[in-house]
Amino acid sequence: MFITFEGIEGCGKSTQSTLLAQWLKNHGWEVQTTREPGGSRLGQNLRSILLSMESRDLTGESELFLYLADRAQHVHQTIKPALDKGAVVLSDRFADSTVVYQGYGRGLDPNLLHTLNDVAVQGVWPDLTLLFDLPVELGLKRAMARNFQDNKTEQEGRFEAESLAFHSRVREGYLTWAALNKNRFQVVDAEPDPETIFNEVQRILRHRFPKWFPE
Amino acid sequence: MFITFEGIEGCGKSTQSTLLAQWLKNHGWEVQTTREPGGSRLGQNLRSILLSMESRDLTGESELFLYLADRAQHVHQTIKPALDKGAVVLSDRFADSTVVYQGYGRGLDPNLLHTLNDVAVQGVWPDLTLLFDLPVELGLKRAMARNFQDNKTEQEGRFEAESLAFHSRVREGYLTWAALNKNRFQVVDAEPDPETIFNEVQRILRHRFPKWFPE
Repeated sequence: MFITFEGIEGCGKSTQSTLLAQWLKNHGWEVQTTREPGGSRLGQNLRSILLSMESRDLTGESELFLYLADRAQHVHQTIKPALDKGAVVLSDRFADSTVVYQGYGRGLDPNLLHTLNDVAVQGVWPDLTLLFDLPVELGLKRAMARNFQDNKTEQEGRFEAESLAFHSRVREGYLTWAALNKNRFQVVDAEPDPETIFNEVQRILRHRFPKWFPE
Repeated sequence: MFITFEGIEGCGKSTQSTLLAQWLKNHGWEVQTTREPGGSRLGQNLRSILLSMESRDLTGESELFLYLADRAQHVHQTIKPALDKGAVVLSDRFADSTVVYQGYGRGLDPNLLHTLNDVAVQGVWPDLTLLFDLPVELGLKRAMARNFQDNKTEQEGRFEAESLAFHSRVREGYLTWAALNKNRFQVVDAEPDPETIFNEVQRILRHRFPKWFPE
């Protein structure tokens, strides 16, 4: 089973991924948690290029192809092998981030992006995508507090430095894309406290996969 | 004017590019020589990833996207600005390398690759592409002699380490692709000595662009 976590900065994806990994392990599952960009050895190098403030002069097309390179290697080296040995794979961001950030966010054609993703994922699409939705202002406030705490102002601040209008397009884009891919997406209200959100995540899993997660 | 140099390893592209740059400068042109991968600051980082023997576990799709990322940034940061200020740009490899190496060489769909190149080059296609053609055995012999001389056995040996069958597919692929793109391509016999080859290059330029390079 392959589950991806999507949403704007500060939506709480990583926290929920950690909670779900622990919960699945308690239920006896083998779990592989991973993320994009940076889910393979190649990805570690690309992640530092992509997220660094120094990459500000990166052209949109180049940024796009770096994410796709990272994704192809991530699928090949991390996700496929884990699924093959029967693990549940939880990825913090995946193909939908490209459609939403580069497409709805930066104005590239979502259909072209879907074609490119199809090359990158090599047939490995998620069984479930959880979209953690909350107002942009709230997400950015949380993301900034986190960056300040972790002293990441230089290293990982590139996306947070984008305009509020950009992040609003991203939030709306996520909701539009989720509506277009209802079979795979599930939108989760990410405003409440982590425990409340995680109860909702468990409810979704039980509802979607009743055989695997009985009440 | 934008001229690209293509061909298998050891075909003498780089030598001819250097000779042509000097000749053009003698004729009063401003010249920008560049290459792929590695034609931008981003490209320098990617070049070392792509060409290193350590990248052997790179999946084909990921390799492809890295080349495209390099190309998009190369066009944006190096080629476009040079053309805009009126320079002649000479690039050692460009978009056709992707179609030939990843397509004819590794078996990806050449039409899909052309679509991807179209995103990467952002409308900047070469005015002329010189294909330096010679038998694979001869090219590899020259490339190996050069690598041995430059002590590059570890760093840049990844492509040379491919099978003879791979390089043969690449040579044939170049000739097929050139025939399909006759308006832009010119095939040059790369077996003779560099001076003879360069005379042919000059003849081609005078023939193709008689106004710019009178006899």
